Amino acid sequence: MPYIRSSDLGPRVLARDVRAIARLLTRAESGVDEARATLDAMFAHAGRAHVVGITGVPGSGKSTLVAKLAAAVRKTGRTIAIVAIDPSSPFSGGSILGDRIRMGDLGGDPGVFVRSMATRGALGGIANGTLETVDVLDAAGFDIVIIETVGVGQDEVEVARAAHSTVVVSAPGLGDDIQAIKAGILEIADIHAVSKCDRPDANRTIADLKTMLALGLTRLDTANVGAVPQPSWRAPVIATSSTRGEGVAELLAAVDDHRAALERSGDIETRRAAIAERRLLAACEAMLREQFARHRDGRLSPLLEKLRTRTLSPRTAAQALLHELKLGGE
Amino acid sequence: MPYIRSSDLGPRVLARDVRAIARLLTRAESGVDEARATLDAMFAHAGRAHVVGITGVPGSGKSTLVAKLAAAVRKTGRTIAIVAIDPSSPFSGGSILGDRIRMGDLGGDPGVFVRSMATRGALGGIANGTLETVDVLDAAGFDIVIIETVGVGQDEVEVARAAHSTVVVSAPGLGDDIQAIKAGILEIADIHAVSKCDRPDANRTIADLKTMLALGLTRLDTANVGAVPQPSWRAPVIATSSTRGEGVAELLAAVDDHRAALERSGDIETRRAAIAERRLLAACEAMLREQFARHRDGRLSPLLEKLRTRTLSPRTAAQALLHELKLGGE
Repeated sequence: MPYIRSSDLGPRVLARDVRAIARLLTRAESGVDEARATLDAMFAHAGRAHVVGITGVPGSGKSTLVAKLAAAVRKTGRTIAIVAIDPSSPFSGGSILGDRIRMGDLGGDPGVFVRSMATRGALGGIANGTLETVDVLDAAGFDIVIIETVGVGQDEVEVARAAHSTVVVSAPGLGDDIQAIKAGILEIADIHAVSKCDRPDANRTIADLKTMLALGLTRLDTANVGAVPQPSWRAPVIATSSTRGEGVAELLAAVDDHRAALERSGDIETRRAAIAERRLLAACEAMLREQFARHRDGRLSPLLEKLRTRTLSPRTAAQALLHELKLGGE
Repeated sequence: MPYIRSSDLGPRVLARDVRAIARLLTRAESGVDEARATLDAMFAHAGRAHVVGITGVPGSGKSTLVAKLAAAVRKTGRTIAIVAIDPSSPFSGGSILGDRIRMGDLGGDPGVFVRSMATRGALGGIANGTLETVDVLDAAGFDIVIIETVGVGQDEVEVARAAHSTVVVSAPGLGDDIQAIKAGILEIADIHAVSKCDRPDANRTIADLKTMLALGLTRLDTANVGAVPQPSWRAPVIATSSTRGEGVAELLAAVDDHRAALERSGDIETRRAAIAERRLLAACEAMLREQFARHRDGRLSPLLEKLRTRTLSPRTAAQALLHELKLGGE
């Protein structure tokens, strides 16, 4: 297969050519320099998609729910892309296969695109890589772009900051340990989905969740978390069952409602501004890490040696390094 | 209470004064400038502690095991500090209380120090903040410093890169979803602990784990994950039961063995070099984020506006910003 220049992939991506999209995304992930200008162009073309973050703890049935949601989106005639941030090993390769399998009937549908990102071990690549992927899929014209994360850590907050709407998936029967952790991510929800509502203990999960919300226990410290307050919106709790196919249409309706509410109140602009901020910081960090990787065995060596022997503090070393690297050029 | 200068806290920290340690850590976390020089001094004094990362998925019983391990360490006459990276909400306050409760009998023991870090929402603060905390506790003379994380995401890899020894805790009966995710963190283990071995299904968990290890399914792609290969060490699998108090002494022995093996083979120096590298990158990132926060409403505004309207690409904007900020000074 001959190498197709990224600049030639660009127009094909904009026409939603699935193979061109996949190729450009691979180049973006590998940090291919030649793809840079094209990715910049994709960014310029993006901005129309509804970006939805969907997160939930392991075992919440989130992936199955996302597949059902994708089918519901397709029924309305819209297209959907899913970026699955998968923490499993980059070698297992299992994640991509898994995605294909769980998409089931949607596998051959050009209106659905699934991209698994093996973030494990990618040095800080999560934020910038994910955001670039979203740009490409947005530019390609997918109506909805979902960022799906397995959530307990910092990554979820980052994702919430990058999305217009965030869905947090809860599930019955996950045990106290997991519920406690979940409390930490409830705060970022614009919409709550409770999965596995065919289970008899689901009612308690829904009731608990509503109680927490009513008590304000999940209120967001916006200054700290950096999320955008939206006083005109009250996060609904949607009961779903992937096995029975229940609640999925309602979930999609809630996602659409949230977008409409953002547009109506003008809060969409505040979110866009917040996303731009995340985007810039992520790009700066990516650049820093690139430079770091480039000079690891060269200019960095004497600094690292001084750190190892503790004759220089990390902060002083960082100052020296940043000065020397002259990030951003002369 | 009068303000005690950080430079006066320093000598008290080195004498393991618990209140002085707590104060200095709070200042480090809040980014108090006045504490900078003292933190640098603490870094210079650090380097003797055995830093142990302990990670496991939610529900693995890891926190209870850490408490038991702390008691076992105390029985040998050594001191121990625990840095718990807690993803629950920064406002719940529940985590700190929870730590105090779960430490039980050790609560009043000056040879045990527990610090919960509410990382949620802390803009990229995990890496640098955690490493600074470890430095202070190391300088304070704690023999063992444990970094405890709830693990499925990127944070765990970062922690593994910051520790001399990494323990991954597995548990029976967590369900397929969680097991699959766990597979991703098995790779970073120097030691495997299986918790809840009083349960009848624990034997299967141990057998599964041993099979995965024997098949090499958890082999580390060191180039990608950035961890340090250590061919002379084979990660043992330790069966533990916190309720029965079984296997905890064996776990501590394995941790000590690992350290001894690192010293014997000389691999400890390779790990120290890798840790120095993580330390430098984390310090650079922290500096970048500080500058970013400082200029958010000032110099950043025109760039952010251009990003929002997509008239400038994130990469170009980042280049302009990094140039303008002149990170590291003139």
